[in-house]
Amino acid sequence: MDKRNAFYAQSGGVTAVINASAAGVIETARAHRSRIGRVYAGRNGIIGALTEDLIDTSRESARDIAALRHTPGGAFGSCRYKLKGIDESRAQYERLIDVFRAHDIGYFFYNGGNDSADTCLKVAQIAQKLGYPLTAVHVPKTVDNDLAVTDNCPGFGSVAKYVATSMREAAFDVASMAKTSTKVFVLEVMGRHAGWITAAVGMAEDAETPIPLVLLFPEIPFDETKVMAAVQARVDRFGYCCIGVSEGLQNADGKLMAEVGTRDAFGHAQLGGVGPLIARLVQERLRYKYHWAVADYLQRAARHIASKTDLEQSYAVGRAAVKLALDGHNAVMPAIVRASDRPYRWKIAMAPLTEVANKEKMLPRDFISRDGYGITSKARLYLAPLINGEVPPPFRDGLPRYVRLRNVAVQKKLAATFDI
Amino acid sequence: MDKRNAFYAQSGGVTAVINASAAGVIETARAHRSRIGRVYAGRNGIIGALTEDLIDTSRESARDIAALRHTPGGAFGSCRYKLKGIDESRAQYERLIDVFRAHDIGYFFYNGGNDSADTCLKVAQIAQKLGYPLTAVHVPKTVDNDLAVTDNCPGFGSVAKYVATSMREAAFDVASMAKTSTKVFVLEVMGRHAGWITAAVGMAEDAETPIPLVLLFPEIPFDETKVMAAVQARVDRFGYCCIGVSEGLQNADGKLMAEVGTRDAFGHAQLGGVGPLIARLVQERLRYKYHWAVADYLQRAARHIASKTDLEQSYAVGRAAVKLALDGHNAVMPAIVRASDRPYRWKIAMAPLTEVANKEKMLPRDFISRDGYGITSKARLYLAPLINGEVPPPFRDGLPRYVRLRNVAVQKKLAATFDI
Repeated sequence: MDKRNAFYAQSGGVTAVINASAAGVIETARAHRSRIGRVYAGRNGIIGALTEDLIDTSRESARDIAALRHTPGGAFGSCRYKLKGIDESRAQYERLIDVFRAHDIGYFFYNGGNDSADTCLKVAQIAQKLGYPLTAVHVPKTVDNDLAVTDNCPGFGSVAKYVATSMREAAFDVASMAKTSTKVFVLEVMGRHAGWITAAVGMAEDAETPIPLVLLFPEIPFDETKVMAAVQARVDRFGYCCIGVSEGLQNADGKLMAEVGTRDAFGHAQLGGVGPLIARLVQERLRYKYHWAVADYLQRAARHIASKTDLEQSYAVGRAAVKLALDGHNAVMPAIVRASDRPYRWKIAMAPLTEVANKEKMLPRDFISRDGYGITSKARLYLAPLINGEVPPPFRDGLPRYVRLRNVAVQKKLAATFDI
Repeated sequence: MDKRNAFYAQSGGVTAVINASAAGVIETARAHRSRIGRVYAGRNGIIGALTEDLIDTSRESARDIAALRHTPGGAFGSCRYKLKGIDESRAQYERLIDVFRAHDIGYFFYNGGNDSADTCLKVAQIAQKLGYPLTAVHVPKTVDNDLAVTDNCPGFGSVAKYVATSMREAAFDVASMAKTSTKVFVLEVMGRHAGWITAAVGMAEDAETPIPLVLLFPEIPFDETKVMAAVQARVDRFGYCCIGVSEGLQNADGKLMAEVGTRDAFGHAQLGGVGPLIARLVQERLRYKYHWAVADYLQRAARHIASKTDLEQSYAVGRAAVKLALDGHNAVMPAIVRASDRPYRWKIAMAPLTEVANKEKMLPRDFISRDGYGITSKARLYLAPLINGEVPPPFRDGLPRYVRLRNVAVQKKLAATFDI
């Protein structure tokens, strides 16, 4: 068979472990030198392909590529840049093929979420239409955990571990302060549409560590009276209450609380997200002293507390993507299949991209407790293995040591430039 | 010598390692059973003493007391309750002595910051005045790092490690997203008066890991034009910028930005603190997409990433407090003395409380770079050993295992109650 080059790009929001998938792709490609020449990475994702700004990963040492396993963020840069339909964006797709042809790219590995799965599928289709031989494989990644088919999404488990750990720790703090000071603590977490990360906050609590939690899911419309009653009940009983709230919390009209709640009567936008909004409501309605935290990027960058399961799966989907491509599978994605909960067993299977692209896997209603403010044992069974295991990065002088690649550019071959 | 009981209480904001000081006190007292009977802890700090709500720590197993070393928050509860001057609050001080007399308490260990050092001193004075034999020793603790005499304050090093690690991780995230998305990231940190924690954010960057940082210290009045120029310069050069801002940032009039900045033209209070405020300014003035995080309690509760130096010193001041008391030293505090920076060597010395109470150690101006937005090598030399070393707690099922004590109440002996 021909030896051809591979293209790899990171897409959308990055995670604590997306670089582990990159390491999986690159190391596996290096192990198949007879079939795969060089792995070129897109600088800043697909934009790098469109502008012919490719990074030659063969210029990186084996040690630095291995260090990607413990380095958060996207080592080659990512982007938020969605290619539209083939008819609308034909020039872009054709440009991609031009660049791939110029650099003899026969394998396309795209590491992202829903949108990226769709792009990957379209790239496979346009290549076929244009008669350009290309094998396109999507590498799943998203902290939102909302990809179809796969049991879970690489990147999610580490955020889940971070938010559960953080809420547990904060609860120990609040419990100590509650007598004379803070009685309600609010932690705002990511997950705009699906409440997977909010559910993970629920893992902070277990039989040995009871914590009076109220979880505000994007799936459960915000009902101020009921939420305040739930908070009040917990403060009455335990002396304090911890609230985990999704950035995507909506009101009964389906509008984001962060938006409706942050305009005052004159329509002026107000600062802050839904976390501080809920905290202020608690203060106004219940007169409790509050504190709030918004973890934002800290939650998805926190490689220092990544989940071992998540890291292993992130690497595994990178490796599997290359193997699927070498086996000639086109327009597919390696998906994680759960064989058993306890003990947790999983394997990688192949999913056609038509079943993944543009689909959103929502949090099942039976993962949320009947009152709407907690998680069920079914949710716990699902989440428990995903946050399991510790894989701290190496530390030096008290801080994690993360690798920065050389990211040497591949010489351009095309005369034409391309504006994005 | 007489065998007498000891009283221990936690005061003010708790930390990731204040329980290590508790372990130091209790374990050292247990090692001197001929001199110290039981250690009673105040439930919710000094309030527990005033209301005769004492916890009998002798009912806790050695294993659980040892587990305090890796458990954040205040295991016996803390409080924000400041005793005023002796003349103003004579009844409270006399009540304390009544309770101590009833329970034969001969040693008073008070674990807190500036205010607590003052309270501890006053308790020593009133006992002397009333002819009640009591040895009062203050155990230093504060994430603010603003206690006088001591080289640093137990609790600070772990917050410093957390904020430096978090900013480093977030910077890797932002760097990947900057091409098409977030260009400016803002992390708000604690430290209302002194910029010690803000300075610690600066440790995120080093020679191997350059990060375009702008630090906004409470010591440097906010100058919007200059700050925006600093941010712009970093984005121009590096493509992105990370801002670490103190919750105590002030304007030129000495007013808290979080307060002046969160009222709109109509005087309506706006949500959020100074972090989101700075982020919005960046958006308005420079038109960059931003993200912001407010770590709040997460930073001071993050036992999972505590500093080894900090943990060891926290335990050491607890142990030293008991030894000082047994040696008959009254109205003193064990202070950390730095013998050398590199290698870091330290020991515990004795400081009279008159030199500590109500004093605030500010960040020296020569720790802040000339432009006001960074730290100097002198600051690095000081901070480096304080964040050094990792001492993760035990994990089970993917989460840190923290101990919850039984906190059994001591039977009350006084007929009189006391309203606080």
